[in-house]
Amino acid sequence: MVKYERLLSDRTELLRASEVRELLKLTEGKKIISLAGGLPDPRVFPKEELAEIAREVILERGDKSLQYSPTAGVTEFREELKKYMGKKGVKIRDDEDLMVLTGSQQGLDIIARTMVDPEDEIIVELPTYLAALNAFRVYRPYFTGVPMDEHGMRTDILEEEIKRLKWLGREIKFIYTIPVAHNPAGITMSRDRKKHLLEIASKYDLLIIEDDPYSFFIYDEGVDITPLKTLDDEGRVIYMSTFSKILAPGLRIGWIIANKTLIDAFERSKQTIDLHTATLPQYIAMEAIRRGVVDRTIEVARKVYRRKRDAMISALREYMVEGAWWPRPVGGLFIMIWLPSMEIDTKKLLPRAIERGVAYVPGASFFANGMGWNTLRLNFSFPTEEQIEEGVRILSDLFREELRGRERINVPLMFGMK
Amino acid sequence: MVKYERLLSDRTELLRASEVRELLKLTEGKKIISLAGGLPDPRVFPKEELAEIAREVILERGDKSLQYSPTAGVTEFREELKKYMGKKGVKIRDDEDLMVLTGSQQGLDIIARTMVDPEDEIIVELPTYLAALNAFRVYRPYFTGVPMDEHGMRTDILEEEIKRLKWLGREIKFIYTIPVAHNPAGITMSRDRKKHLLEIASKYDLLIIEDDPYSFFIYDEGVDITPLKTLDDEGRVIYMSTFSKILAPGLRIGWIIANKTLIDAFERSKQTIDLHTATLPQYIAMEAIRRGVVDRTIEVARKVYRRKRDAMISALREYMVEGAWWPRPVGGLFIMIWLPSMEIDTKKLLPRAIERGVAYVPGASFFANGMGWNTLRLNFSFPTEEQIEEGVRILSDLFREELRGRERINVPLMFGMK
Repeated sequence: MVKYERLLSDRTELLRASEVRELLKLTEGKKIISLAGGLPDPRVFPKEELAEIAREVILERGDKSLQYSPTAGVTEFREELKKYMGKKGVKIRDDEDLMVLTGSQQGLDIIARTMVDPEDEIIVELPTYLAALNAFRVYRPYFTGVPMDEHGMRTDILEEEIKRLKWLGREIKFIYTIPVAHNPAGITMSRDRKKHLLEIASKYDLLIIEDDPYSFFIYDEGVDITPLKTLDDEGRVIYMSTFSKILAPGLRIGWIIANKTLIDAFERSKQTIDLHTATLPQYIAMEAIRRGVVDRTIEVARKVYRRKRDAMISALREYMVEGAWWPRPVGGLFIMIWLPSMEIDTKKLLPRAIERGVAYVPGASFFANGMGWNTLRLNFSFPTEEQIEEGVRILSDLFREELRGRERINVPLMFGMK
Repeated sequence: MVKYERLLSDRTELLRASEVRELLKLTEGKKIISLAGGLPDPRVFPKEELAEIAREVILERGDKSLQYSPTAGVTEFREELKKYMGKKGVKIRDDEDLMVLTGSQQGLDIIARTMVDPEDEIIVELPTYLAALNAFRVYRPYFTGVPMDEHGMRTDILEEEIKRLKWLGREIKFIYTIPVAHNPAGITMSRDRKKHLLEIASKYDLLIIEDDPYSFFIYDEGVDITPLKTLDDEGRVIYMSTFSKILAPGLRIGWIIANKTLIDAFERSKQTIDLHTATLPQYIAMEAIRRGVVDRTIEVARKVYRRKRDAMISALREYMVEGAWWPRPVGGLFIMIWLPSMEIDTKKLLPRAIERGVAYVPGASFFANGMGWNTLRLNFSFPTEEQIEEGVRILSDLFREELRGRERINVPLMFGMK
């Protein structure tokens, strides 16, 4: 018998199967209200338009759309994306370029792969996107977490942490942030915080990764969603986004904007990773931008998700246990709940929630500092409004039972509010 | 000014830009006969059928084909691929599974990423696939090269090398081979060699990576293309293939078959790399198998490429400098030429060839041992038959001039022939 385990590399050890993931896998296809994933509602997919576009780009441009294509992306598509970025207010500097990715997940991997050496320091928000932590972790960095409040990353604490790390002689590789409609926290960074963040980056000569999957669809009026990248005068911001939410995740197309020196390194890296992103989806996404399908899809999604967000907030207000706290998201797909006791562990409760017919993601995995076991993330884009109400009701009952007799904390106070 | 260079990881240093690649990039879109790439002839793409399939899978199954999908691949597609593999004679054991890849390039990266620690030993053929060397190199292995003759890898030398490495106390991670229609060498491994290779793997408890992009279209009759995987009684063979040659590279779909322990590690790794392979191309490839489009495409490609291969061999026979040697490929897309002098460097000659209007890939980068500077790889699938003849004639003239007065070697003798 071959001993396969023996043949795995040390870095594979860092990728242990997640219990939560295994648990959630078991619910697939079952009659469960899933508030766990981050899937778009398939009813917003512009199927008819994409079917026609796909047919045309294969029939009329198949020599190219079915062929190998450049590692950095189909040239014509990159130009189209740059124009689109311009219209959305994302500035691309003369010394910068845009590269196409196999989903923005690939951006997280490539950034870490090309930039992170073992024991480098990465600064992240508390909480932050789980899949970013996992992608980075493979390259053996240390993480430093900076708490958020309702205005986004606490930049005052960020500066203290940077001083501490500098004093320790650590190499800070970058600050990773999701400024708008944060996943999982649902928080959007204020303009002041953005400016302060950029000032700090400049003062301490640091790079910032701006992960921006959600700013294209914001449900409220008057929200300042100016990208960090646009306020960035020194080329310190690496900007990433994706078609997964604004068109269709099944195309697996993302993009990254950065200084040409970095893009060049990313491109060489991508060449060994997957040679290039699938050509056909690039042609489809290009035509979808040109024909206004992307903008129309965003409009449709915005309406559908606004209703669902509002349904979830109503349900939370009606049912959720007293003392629980959640930031009201202006956009995105998620609401994060802080339960009012540190004696409750949402990971341990998940099997019981599933038994009662509802799945969610326990919050602890989003916290680089090992905290957050009293938090959970709820998705509102995929379930129906009825499922949202029913799901929140069931969870609230479970938490209420579990909180009985536990020592309480004042969550809003923890966040410096009230 | 930000010093971006300073922020790159040590491993990025291993991915220096290739001079040859930069040179070949310059020829893109120019009036040059390119015998350099490995592109399919777009005339073999089944455009009408794929256009109709794409339209249908979006319109009728868009809820799924445009959505996120499992990391290991769309379940239904994996089942279809397993059946297809069965029909093609590739045996999948009960303790094995199949995972979908974003092109087989991703397989090379994922295998090395999950299995290779720095200073591990990887055994490759001399020459071997350049992009495999590049993918593996990132993980800092040592390479040991084993020469080939017209029957494939010299397994007698392989065994000597393994003994040497074991004596040195080295950790041999796997043997990487392209048994059928080798890229770049154009050689196909004989049945005896395959058996000997598997015996050796068993004797020394080693794994084999079988990279098999080409065995689906073989131009000659009576060639034994039994996959190593099918002769593998002990689960020592990891098998990889791709749709790039049998349908369309623009879909970027490959697959890998291995023991479940390994597939599980590959899956966890893929999750941080790109979450999953684009869903839509998986649905398209699945329907293309079901409707016989893949098999019909292979039939068409076979005829077109057979003619082109024959055209290249005729041209080589007519024009190529005396004493040059090339194995006659029974399939695949490439012919490799050994020039009859070690005083000639095809990399140095490339700019002059391009000046005269022909591009090729210098052979040295395919050799893990730093040799092969007197070799070059020619592609016959993309150029027209006229371009093939013209290109070979121009190159032959150049080499003839360059060889004048140089010390000659007997290439076939080097390979133990005649």
